[in-house]
Amino acid sequence: MNAIQVGLLGLGTVGSGVVKIIREHQDKLQHLVGCPVELKKVLVREKDKQRLIDVDPALLTTDPYEVIRDQEVDVVIEVMGGIEQTKEYLLEALHGKKHVVTANKDLMALYGSELLGAATRNGCDLFYEASVAGGIPILRGLVDGLASDRITKMMGIVNGTTNFILTKMSKYGSPYSEVLKEAQDLGYAEADPTADVEGLDAARKMAILARLGFSMNVDLQDVQVKGISAISDEDINYSKRLGYTMKLIGIAHRQQNSIEVSVEPTLLPDHHPLAAVNDEYNAVYVYGEAVGETMFYGPGAGSLPTATAVVSDLVGVMKNMRLGVNGRSAVAPQYEKQMKRPEEIHAQHFLRIHVKDQVGALAKITGLFSERGVSFEKILQLPLKNSELAEIVIVTHHASQRDFTDIQLQLENLEVVSKVKSTYRVEGNGEV
Amino acid sequence: MNAIQVGLLGLGTVGSGVVKIIREHQDKLQHLVGCPVELKKVLVREKDKQRLIDVDPALLTTDPYEVIRDQEVDVVIEVMGGIEQTKEYLLEALHGKKHVVTANKDLMALYGSELLGAATRNGCDLFYEASVAGGIPILRGLVDGLASDRITKMMGIVNGTTNFILTKMSKYGSPYSEVLKEAQDLGYAEADPTADVEGLDAARKMAILARLGFSMNVDLQDVQVKGISAISDEDINYSKRLGYTMKLIGIAHRQQNSIEVSVEPTLLPDHHPLAAVNDEYNAVYVYGEAVGETMFYGPGAGSLPTATAVVSDLVGVMKNMRLGVNGRSAVAPQYEKQMKRPEEIHAQHFLRIHVKDQVGALAKITGLFSERGVSFEKILQLPLKNSELAEIVIVTHHASQRDFTDIQLQLENLEVVSKVKSTYRVEGNGEV
Repeated sequence: MNAIQVGLLGLGTVGSGVVKIIREHQDKLQHLVGCPVELKKVLVREKDKQRLIDVDPALLTTDPYEVIRDQEVDVVIEVMGGIEQTKEYLLEALHGKKHVVTANKDLMALYGSELLGAATRNGCDLFYEASVAGGIPILRGLVDGLASDRITKMMGIVNGTTNFILTKMSKYGSPYSEVLKEAQDLGYAEADPTADVEGLDAARKMAILARLGFSMNVDLQDVQVKGISAISDEDINYSKRLGYTMKLIGIAHRQQNSIEVSVEPTLLPDHHPLAAVNDEYNAVYVYGEAVGETMFYGPGAGSLPTATAVVSDLVGVMKNMRLGVNGRSAVAPQYEKQMKRPEEIHAQHFLRIHVKDQVGALAKITGLFSERGVSFEKILQLPLKNSELAEIVIVTHHASQRDFTDIQLQLENLEVVSKVKSTYRVEGNGEV
Repeated sequence: MNAIQVGLLGLGTVGSGVVKIIREHQDKLQHLVGCPVELKKVLVREKDKQRLIDVDPALLTTDPYEVIRDQEVDVVIEVMGGIEQTKEYLLEALHGKKHVVTANKDLMALYGSELLGAATRNGCDLFYEASVAGGIPILRGLVDGLASDRITKMMGIVNGTTNFILTKMSKYGSPYSEVLKEAQDLGYAEADPTADVEGLDAARKMAILARLGFSMNVDLQDVQVKGISAISDEDINYSKRLGYTMKLIGIAHRQQNSIEVSVEPTLLPDHHPLAAVNDEYNAVYVYGEAVGETMFYGPGAGSLPTATAVVSDLVGVMKNMRLGVNGRSAVAPQYEKQMKRPEEIHAQHFLRIHVKDQVGALAKITGLFSERGVSFEKILQLPLKNSELAEIVIVTHHASQRDFTDIQLQLENLEVVSKVKSTYRVEGNGEV
């Protein structure tokens, strides 16, 4: 078989990693697929820039069509980012019968179905392992490794930036703003950190995981999202005191045929496998009816880890080329999407409430919960320093989202309540 | 496509799980591969036994040849165990152009190369994901997910029985014999626990992992093995005191082109991801040059978890049947096997020594180490209750196996040394 020709869109952090791995592991790649892999064309923004890796200048171009319309390019690797314009490039590559490997979660979360459909119609592969949890082969784990099982729940730490921030806040008791600045200085957070800290990046990954794990066309707008920017050091201290670790957790849960997908700051018991996933690491915890608990752990980002996932996808494409079976492994979603209603979503909740220090205050508050049949697992009342107020911290047993929202509204209206300071979901106490 | 016909060898714990999953997840299987899956014949030891699951008595047979020679059987699933005789059955099945899925680690560790060769020659698939770490899709993770990377180290907790025993010893300070009995009562350990507690079971799995991860023909006899039966509660207490957790760890390490493979009780720093893997759970930690640290965690045994891996392999076979590419995904080992010599194997070591309580005893001991250029990370000397002796506990920096073996011999010969009570490998302190 002739050499496989690769067209690369983007030569930034991940793109440089891809070039490095293709070069350094050429022997292994050739052994696996029986032919060499060659870089044919590389799209860059500027030709004469200082780069992380040396590439023959003759391969560089600033015109995307020189890559996606090159007759000799077999596989297009997209690591440039972007959404609308990038989608057009990849659609054109697929119509030109080129296979595509992408690390673009934004694109796959928004247009995954459309792109996968185009790939199948053109007999092409479209692989995107690197789009979720960088170097962790979680998509393959779901699609192949757990193929025979019925997956009912996935919980993921799928954003390294927020996990880095929460780990530091928890370890050193530092406030959010200070740790965010540290993360920016270290290059773990971007100058505009919104997509990370407000949970959008994690939401995109959870949409992709839910689509694969539940075999439904889950869209980004199906994901309920809450970020970490409002978490105070008091919240973290209370959760530690109660035996919990605060993490930004993506949850995808199926019961019968209905699902919920969310991303929100969540308290996990300290002994939960995800509670020990620290710093910029990612992990996805998967619960299957037959297999029970499994977890996939590793680096969620970074040049070489992400590039490993990209080039492993490239190996998949090349193996399929050798066998002549490209574009035939994609499976359409099996089920109609059905989202749970608020009364069908159940979770435990943590609340921190400031109340007036009056006789009967606690009774009024607990009354609201018990009217709705919601009981408590833990409750803590403490006087608040330099204040007329007291602080009450509650962990409820399971309650529906509807009941919990109603209770929150009524709490705010209670005369004895000064303010509901914070509420968080609590997960991992045994019930799946 | 017509229904795929499955012949099942064995209807014990795992076999019953396989039947249950094929039945309960029939919709998903049919959606994935486009045709139903049917059980054609089932080999059992006795026809009229009480079983874990109901199976049509007409399908049962006590004659293996009724399964492996059945013209209509497409795939033989082997979950009966055994080695020599079982190998003959599977070779005959492969010669008869039947695909094979097996959960048999003993067989694959001893005759994996021979069976895989027969499969390739006959255009058949031979998959064995369930043979290592039950429900954890680790073999796929190595072969597909990390295909593009160069794996340099694997560390595995791959035996649930010993992990259960060590977890309990560590948690409750109970002695080995007591916990072993508890494990036997709970069904986690067999009446004859030798294969588990002496490390043989783990060694088989490490041989399989090393063969795949390093692409060399690693054999069972290449694995250095030491079990857990000599671990005392003192050893566990000292390791806790020094910030370590005792685990039975399988290590496969590649440096340049030479490898070492071993299974032995090992001290890991408490913060290491494997140190938190408790009870009967398994995990495999993989270090790749590009990806860095990843870990796969899950149930290492049990009826349904293991059956999930078996049926996921069956899905792989069926997808290949649909595409007409069976027997074409196996890759022969890329490298000649080259084992490290004792002077090339480096590790840190823990030693517990009883010495005569004499002036200069410690100096004589430390002298032996420094002559060989081996320095200490930690050292602890304590008087021994009701005795003329003192106890010295040492954690060395990295030393070669050759130097360490020599030092041990010389220690035993020192006049001031009463006895070298125990030695353990120490891993996970950063250096890969």
